[in-house]
Amino acid sequence: MVYYADYLALDTVLNAQHPESDKAGKPAHEELLFIITHQTFELWFKQVLHELGSVITLFDTDYIRESDVALAQARILRVNRIMEHLVNQWDLIETMTPGEFMDFRALLNPASGFQSAQWRVLEKTLGLPENKRVLKHYTDALSDAHRAIVEKAGSQTLFNVVQRWLEKTPFLESGEYAFWDSYRQAVAAMLDHDRDEVRTLATAEHRDPTDALNQIDSIERGFQALFDPTEYSGLVEQGHRRMSQRATLAILFISTYRDYPLLQAPYRLLDAIIELDKLVSIWRYRHTLMVSRMIGMRVGTGGSSGSEYLMQTTVRQRVFDDVTSLSSFLLPTSARPTLPADVANRLQFVNEASAS
Amino acid sequence: MVYYADYLALDTVLNAQHPESDKAGKPAHEELLFIITHQTFELWFKQVLHELGSVITLFDTDYIRESDVALAQARILRVNRIMEHLVNQWDLIETMTPGEFMDFRALLNPASGFQSAQWRVLEKTLGLPENKRVLKHYTDALSDAHRAIVEKAGSQTLFNVVQRWLEKTPFLESGEYAFWDSYRQAVAAMLDHDRDEVRTLATAEHRDPTDALNQIDSIERGFQALFDPTEYSGLVEQGHRRMSQRATLAILFISTYRDYPLLQAPYRLLDAIIELDKLVSIWRYRHTLMVSRMIGMRVGTGGSSGSEYLMQTTVRQRVFDDVTSLSSFLLPTSARPTLPADVANRLQFVNEASAS
Amino acid sequence: MVYYADYLALDTVLNAQHPESDKAGKPAHEELLFIITHQTFELWFKQVLHELGSVITLFDTDYIRESDVALAQARILRVNRIMEHLVNQWDLIETMTPGEFMDFRALLNPASGFQSAQWRVLEKTLGLPENKRVLKHYTDALSDAHRAIVEKAGSQTLFNVVQRWLEKTPFLESGEYAFWDSYRQAVAAMLDHDRDEVRTLATAEHRDPTDALNQIDSIERGFQALFDPTEYSGLVEQGHRRMSQRATLAILFISTYRDYPLLQAPYRLLDAIIELDKLVSIWRYRHTLMVSRMIGMRVGTGGSSGSEYLMQTTVRQRVFDDVTSLSSFLLPTSARPTLPADVANRLQFVNEASAS
Amino acid sequence: MVYYADYLALDTVLNAQHPESDKAGKPAHEELLFIITHQTFELWFKQVLHELGSVITLFDTDYIRESDVALAQARILRVNRIMEHLVNQWDLIETMTPGEFMDFRALLNPASGFQSAQWRVLEKTLGLPENKRVLKHYTDALSDAHRAIVEKAGSQTLFNVVQRWLEKTPFLESGEYAFWDSYRQAVAAMLDHDRDEVRTLATAEHRDPTDALNQIDSIERGFQALFDPTEYSGLVEQGHRRMSQRATLAILFISTYRDYPLLQAPYRLLDAIIELDKLVSIWRYRHTLMVSRMIGMRVGTGGSSGSEYLMQTTVRQRVFDDVTSLSSFLLPTSARPTLPADVANRLQFVNEASAS
Repeated sequence: MVYYADYLALDTVLNAQHPESDKAGKPAHEELLFIITHQTFELWFKQVLHELGSVITLFDTDYIRESDVALAQARILRVNRIMEHLVNQWDLIETMTPGEFMDFRALLNPASGFQSAQWRVLEKTLGLPENKRVLKHYTDALSDAHRAIVEKAGSQTLFNVVQRWLEKTPFLESGEYAFWDSYRQAVAAMLDHDRDEVRTLATAEHRDPTDALNQIDSIERGFQALFDPTEYSGLVEQGHRRMSQRATLAILFISTYRDYPLLQAPYRLLDAIIELDKLVSIWRYRHTLMVSRMIGMRVGTGGSSGSEYLMQTTVRQRVFDDVTSLSSFLLPTSARPTLPADVANRLQFVNEASAS
Repeated sequence: MVYYADYLALDTVLNAQHPESDKAGKPAHEELLFIITHQTFELWFKQVLHELGSVITLFDTDYIRESDVALAQARILRVNRIMEHLVNQWDLIETMTPGEFMDFRALLNPASGFQSAQWRVLEKTLGLPENKRVLKHYTDALSDAHRAIVEKAGSQTLFNVVQRWLEKTPFLESGEYAFWDSYRQAVAAMLDHDRDEVRTLATAEHRDPTDALNQIDSIERGFQALFDPTEYSGLVEQGHRRMSQRATLAILFISTYRDYPLLQAPYRLLDAIIELDKLVSIWRYRHTLMVSRMIGMRVGTGGSSGSEYLMQTTVRQRVFDDVTSLSSFLLPTSARPTLPADVANRLQFVNEASAS
Repeated sequence: MVYYADYLALDTVLNAQHPESDKAGKPAHEELLFIITHQTFELWFKQVLHELGSVITLFDTDYIRESDVALAQARILRVNRIMEHLVNQWDLIETMTPGEFMDFRALLNPASGFQSAQWRVLEKTLGLPENKRVLKHYTDALSDAHRAIVEKAGSQTLFNVVQRWLEKTPFLESGEYAFWDSYRQAVAAMLDHDRDEVRTLATAEHRDPTDALNQIDSIERGFQALFDPTEYSGLVEQGHRRMSQRATLAILFISTYRDYPLLQAPYRLLDAIIELDKLVSIWRYRHTLMVSRMIGMRVGTGGSSGSEYLMQTTVRQRVFDDVTSLSSFLLPTSARPTLPADVANRLQFVNEASAS
Repeated sequence: MVYYADYLALDTVLNAQHPESDKAGKPAHEELLFIITHQTFELWFKQVLHELGSVITLFDTDYIRESDVALAQARILRVNRIMEHLVNQWDLIETMTPGEFMDFRALLNPASGFQSAQWRVLEKTLGLPENKRVLKHYTDALSDAHRAIVEKAGSQTLFNVVQRWLEKTPFLESGEYAFWDSYRQAVAAMLDHDRDEVRTLATAEHRDPTDALNQIDSIERGFQALFDPTEYSGLVEQGHRRMSQRATLAILFISTYRDYPLLQAPYRLLDAIIELDKLVSIWRYRHTLMVSRMIGMRVGTGGSSGSEYLMQTTVRQRVFDDVTSLSSFLLPTSARPTLPADVANRLQFVNEASAS
């Protein structure tokens, strides 16, 4: 017979709060809030890692069943719900005023929320590359055991398995048909149209269109590079793009023909991943706001400077910005090239296919 | 030197998840979500009890400083934020489908979220009377240790200390002045006005005003009873009201003259308590919806029937409905009786008083 | 050239707030909050009706493409997000205290949020049957124009199109195979197992198992009725069930074999609809809590009694409780009957099918 | 008799949606979502301006009653609740995929959410200085009427009235007593202690303490400048600080002695304002994330570049960073200087004062 409290190990979990201010003999009422906020963060991080790990396992194979794509999406959506919840959790700790925090802050040195081993593992599991990680000295500050865990993590990442899965997307070519030829023309037309827009607009608003036009030119160059293997690998080397050329083209294909049955699950999975990347970024941003509110410009517990961290994290630490940025090259449904009949047919279900 | 992971006892907390489906050799992916959802609920319950306990301690004294009233309000507002967070947490576990839950449900019998000892303690700490508690057999199912904790709880309740504090509200009488005389007349006029409204309205909508008018009559009777000690104690005996007559009149006084400096903190505290009572009710309601979604009409883990529970909890288990229901007797600012100068003056601050 | 303010008709929308307390010459600060809360509710109701209408149109046809099922799910998920947002919007108006509301309440008579024509249309569009609607006199209070709109609505409902779509689910029979025969045996075994659980549990907790066992019996009877056309139509006549027998069996089939590619989208659509039904119920519940907080037990604007409404709405007004309640009959994956190879194969995609 | 639909002008509000894609003859399903999202944003902006305007009016006077401070706080808290709601509203429009947006994006040119006149008014009403405002060309793009409104706004700002109110805080000096002398010593001791911490920490983590120590030095310089009129005005001229010296010292005084009755309401008001400043910043950040997701790196409707905007807004556009940053100089309660008896006494209420 299972007993609720034993099943949840409550005698352990509910007795794992040890405020430093109690030990110091001057109890600070708000320290328990500080502890429980971070413990629940960590418990949810464990759940997030459980879900991401299962998705990576599903995808770390040569043949991925379409049902596993839908399952992966459902689990990423769950992770997104959890991340939204954790973003809102910052509101709870912010019911503590900076003055109340002052009453026990000093006792915690040098501990810091930035020292969360699980968060580092989470970043590596998503696929955050070393050169994008900031505040490395926190990793240095980890215990040997935890540093080992962090270093072991990320042998297989969400970024990698998703990239490999995308590279295997069928139908990019079929006999005469090559997706990118038709697509290239359509995008060229679209960007020309953008240029007209910008000029009209600039005239109307009496401002110089040069910047906007240069921006379009750079987009066009970036776009052409998508199709030129040499240029593309150049961009990768210079760190302007991370995802392989074929994976990138696959994303464009899936996004363009998303209403075909076989492409729906992949499309929704990509959308869920973009959402996840955004939520991780928001969580960091809220963390930074909380730090700068609690300690102003002072040296934080653990030596972090809120503002410095803000600049680096919110701007640089996106894992899937390659995917997000591709919305630059999307086409209106009306402008998308028609698929050859044989490709279109093979994107159906058995019954629909036989029906057609 | 404090180390983040040690400070938070993470090696303990993050290793306290033991899925039954693993032990049974058929791991169910969603069981970890089930465990972590309940563990984080329990951790936050501990925080809520920490805050409520501190408020009760602040108020469990003969002279309550006005600064402690404001502090109590700030802590109840924190509890409310936490309860809102926990209400939303139901969304996370509901990312598990009933079918996924079926894969490990049977293994948990008879454990049930309704067996949370801390939740029972929370109910008793708020002041939920025995006769309003439902599903008593869950308490029977507790371990001796936990049952002892539950039974020990509630020796002092939020309801009791708030009631005693209200009973000590000064200024209800002062020389010639008695708050209720002036108030009684004003309310009588208001209810007459309501009767006219109802008749006009009924005529306009071609429907029978009888029910609405009877309702007003019963309100008026209930209202008269507020001022008649004999009638009032009758209502208390019959369980129609719980809070003492004097405390009830104090709430009306505070609400009516809430814009006087000395009454602001008390008014906001009462408002926060009503909000808390509401949030506890919403949390229960969401719990019930989750149960009925997960197990339909079936016998739940722990033997609960969702529908039965729904009926009883959402309707009966309010602790402060006395306070909430008093909005029936509020007056528009325009209609409120003027305070005698000496009372009005003593509701100011030092400087303002001396200034006036 | 489109101009932001013209595009959004802001000069119209932002000048459509006309507080009665201004007209009466005694401006009440909080009335604008009251107006804008309700106007934004109504704007979002329009969006919800736009989405539900599009889903009904997609499904109001003889052959529903699988891609349209996924599209319908995406739109219901959007509606759910909107409804969650509207549930939280109650928190905004509750920043107004009952006392502040008193300052303009009387001026609004007999207007009431329960008089929203769009909400009535929404209920009818979902498929809420007349006999489940409460507070009918509000509909009587509508203008002729609005009553006409409400009466016209619901000619085609989400409930009806979903039911018809479910009735067309293929594969329920195939040659020798009939889904329900295999399923019936499995459920019988499951309920026997439940009985054992209940007895063990009752013994352990020293309480009488009779109620729980009777409950299982009634479930079994209800379950047997699912498969007996005569009994089933009896249940429908008595109002115990609304959805047709074939649609009900289809839900069980889809839920049981949800991991087959062709059944995923249908399964997720049903899950989203159950979620929607829940959110509509929560919105009503929050509405009722707000009313009872603002006006206590008094006659509300429009003559509603909070408590009366609470009882009726939260308990009776579910549209898809048929679907929700079926979780009573779900089976653990381990216990589900195996599908015949030909059926299993036809639940694949073209390529996977040809691959196998 | 007031009729719900007339009272809310629903026939106007619910007929103010005119999708461009309908006019163009190729209806895009998601355009209504786009319109209603922005219309509800604008309606809530009106409410926010209503609340902020009322607070400014309350404070735009020579003698501010303490009850008005509490009222102002309650209204700022309401604004904060609204802003939280609007932050979450971004989730609704993000249920539209970039591909769906593409189907009508081009039709909206050059309209842009960055062209909201009310948002500009909101920024000016808070007190955002011209030199901190970005994307000025949007203001240029406003109609003459709207530009006039924007230019007229901000004659009186929340920043200014709060600053003036702070400058009038009594008790900063009293006879012998001068707040800053006692405070200066305490902070100096605190910063010395910080230096020790940093060194210990750097040693433990084997990293160079120089940066951290320089940071403390710069804080100390900034701190000394708080008390040196000449230095302070230098900082103001160089744009390092905006708020006057006296107001800044008042904030330190209020924060330090916040538990005295007379200082509670001021303290909570300042806390609510910091929260508001944070929420405005989060709303902008979410807006920017939405833009970059929808249009990638492309020229946005209205010519905005998501990334450029992100950099500028999230980092530079805080109105009350002066107040937020002061948490750098807070003292633990244990370390705060004791108040002279006469000052302490005058921070009480009438009765408590006479009682003492």
